[in-house]
Amino acid sequence: MKAAVLNQGRMVLRDDVAEPVPAQNQVLVQVKACGICGSDLHFAKHGRRMLELGAEMTSGGLTSAGLAGGLDLDRDVFMGHEFAAEVLEVGPDTETPLGAGSLVTSIPILFGPGGIEPIVYSNTTIGGYAERMLLSSFMLLEVPNGLDASRAALTEPMAVGLHAVNRSNIAPGEAAVVLGCGPVGLSVIAALRMKGVGPILAADFSPARRDLAIRLGAHEAVDPKEETAWAAWARSGRGGSAVVFEAIGVPGIINDIMRSAPGGSRVVVVGVCMEADTFTPFFGISKELNMQFVLGYEPAEFAESLRAIAEGDIDVAPLVTAEVGLDRVGWAFDALGDPEQHCKIVVTP
Amino acid sequence: MKAAVLNQGRMVLRDDVAEPVPAQNQVLVQVKACGICGSDLHFAKHGRRMLELGAEMTSGGLTSAGLAGGLDLDRDVFMGHEFAAEVLEVGPDTETPLGAGSLVTSIPILFGPGGIEPIVYSNTTIGGYAERMLLSSFMLLEVPNGLDASRAALTEPMAVGLHAVNRSNIAPGEAAVVLGCGPVGLSVIAALRMKGVGPILAADFSPARRDLAIRLGAHEAVDPKEETAWAAWARSGRGGSAVVFEAIGVPGIINDIMRSAPGGSRVVVVGVCMEADTFTPFFGISKELNMQFVLGYEPAEFAESLRAIAEGDIDVAPLVTAEVGLDRVGWAFDALGDPEQHCKIVVTP
Repeated sequence: MKAAVLNQGRMVLRDDVAEPVPAQNQVLVQVKACGICGSDLHFAKHGRRMLELGAEMTSGGLTSAGLAGGLDLDRDVFMGHEFAAEVLEVGPDTETPLGAGSLVTSIPILFGPGGIEPIVYSNTTIGGYAERMLLSSFMLLEVPNGLDASRAALTEPMAVGLHAVNRSNIAPGEAAVVLGCGPVGLSVIAALRMKGVGPILAADFSPARRDLAIRLGAHEAVDPKEETAWAAWARSGRGGSAVVFEAIGVPGIINDIMRSAPGGSRVVVVGVCMEADTFTPFFGISKELNMQFVLGYEPAEFAESLRAIAEGDIDVAPLVTAEVGLDRVGWAFDALGDPEQHCKIVVTP
Repeated sequence: MKAAVLNQGRMVLRDDVAEPVPAQNQVLVQVKACGICGSDLHFAKHGRRMLELGAEMTSGGLTSAGLAGGLDLDRDVFMGHEFAAEVLEVGPDTETPLGAGSLVTSIPILFGPGGIEPIVYSNTTIGGYAERMLLSSFMLLEVPNGLDASRAALTEPMAVGLHAVNRSNIAPGEAAVVLGCGPVGLSVIAALRMKGVGPILAADFSPARRDLAIRLGAHEAVDPKEETAWAAWARSGRGGSAVVFEAIGVPGIINDIMRSAPGGSRVVVVGVCMEADTFTPFFGISKELNMQFVLGYEPAEFAESLRAIAEGDIDVAPLVTAEVGLDRVGWAFDALGDPEQHCKIVVTP
């Protein structure tokens, strides 16, 4: 069967991938839609460095990012963890109410005979950039309300924003600053709006992204070239500390926030910076900042995200700027570099 | 009168400082004891850089560190913010139950005709490295229980530890790792013990400091050359996330904690690093770390610290390794560089 795989930093199409066969408690599914995640672009570019950083850590971390165990970057790497799919075949001795024909999604984790296999980056576990893949029967969530597969595929990235918002402990009535309006920042904005937080002040250099920020629920979106988020924050008259979501993920941004944010602010780092970075602890100390790094989501947040999309609490339609086949995944990875042209590209194998 | 002042990075003795005169709502006090704070050593060494960093921040911070307003490092700088003193004279039209002869302490803030003047670093507001100084009458706390002045002077540094512990939201029954057993780390240990947190695992290269850590309440103190705090943590069998207090304050330590701490840990940065530092956001992200920077204390924490010392909940006696006169403050600043010889030196003018 066909799959788009990462090889030497590029996405290439294979047409000779072995057909996956469901074991007990697994189902074989046909991928209907799979979103391209910024972390996949990161991994294509910085995969080797990510593996090195993972090895440097003496405890904790990374397992949830699917980097534990021996990943070989000189072999094909399967990716694609934002998927919706149709059940084709239920594995042997497996009970599930979601038989053939059911439209489903799942947290990207596969329970196999060898243990837990994250469906994120793998030489062996097939992800959503493929015609077919395996899912664990007991992890399946049915896509409700006749929701379109390409919308349902956005359950995962929307869960990331919901998790960041939950971790921030922000309360309705508090205000938020969201720096960066790529898919991560937009999912944060959608979750904030859903929780009744406001005003939500967003900032991005791209007019297209600012427009999306407003459509997803931001009350105001500023161009940092014209007015910084901090000047806009001061203008809003709220003063005092802010709850700041860092969704840019480039070196220097955390120090800039520490330098510029009001004293006592809570900073939620949801952007993923792969490089070593420089910061000034003294800024954090003299302002008593709190910095919460976040990753992923809880199963309940994933389910809540699917419900919110299906019931219209979050409208993800504006995010999808293109749909492509497996043969154009490489093109899509390149195209996502231009924020004016694209936000979320969905692969429909 | 006499005062030890900072001049061109060195502490020098002046004998011609103008006698301070109390205004309304002020009292003139005779300094009985004033502890030398690590932040004073930092400021003597990095004062210019601290002022630059303060100016770089576009909002928040620093006011509480007494750096707001125009401090001129080419003139004499008064310092000394950990003091106990005897009231000599009450200012005009001032009501206070604490008249001449009362032993008092106070948060190091003076309310004057020109506004709030922090008693931390100043060209004009005299601090505790002097024979006499001014305090605000309504900020005075009486030193109770016949507590000795040199013990009462440790109210301020002990309040710093108490504040860090309160900010960590650590609960009795949770365990803590304290990295660095200088005065800040020791005050954290004392506050943790007072709150019933345990076990408390401390780490310091110095045998003398490890001994103090145990005396102040740590359940175990390890030498990182023999066994890292993280190995000791794993050996303790508690596993899981830790509440980590960073009380070292040198470049690299925050990244080392991010690399080594268990996933989900809360890191309280109470050590003061004045230099730019390098860190790896990816470590924080993949472990979902929380980092709380802290500074100073609340008035209630200062009062609680005085009470705890006076009632014997915290025994600060082991911390004081020397008492010196005003003429030996310069010597004491140098001597504090050796952790085997000294921990807290108290100036008794």
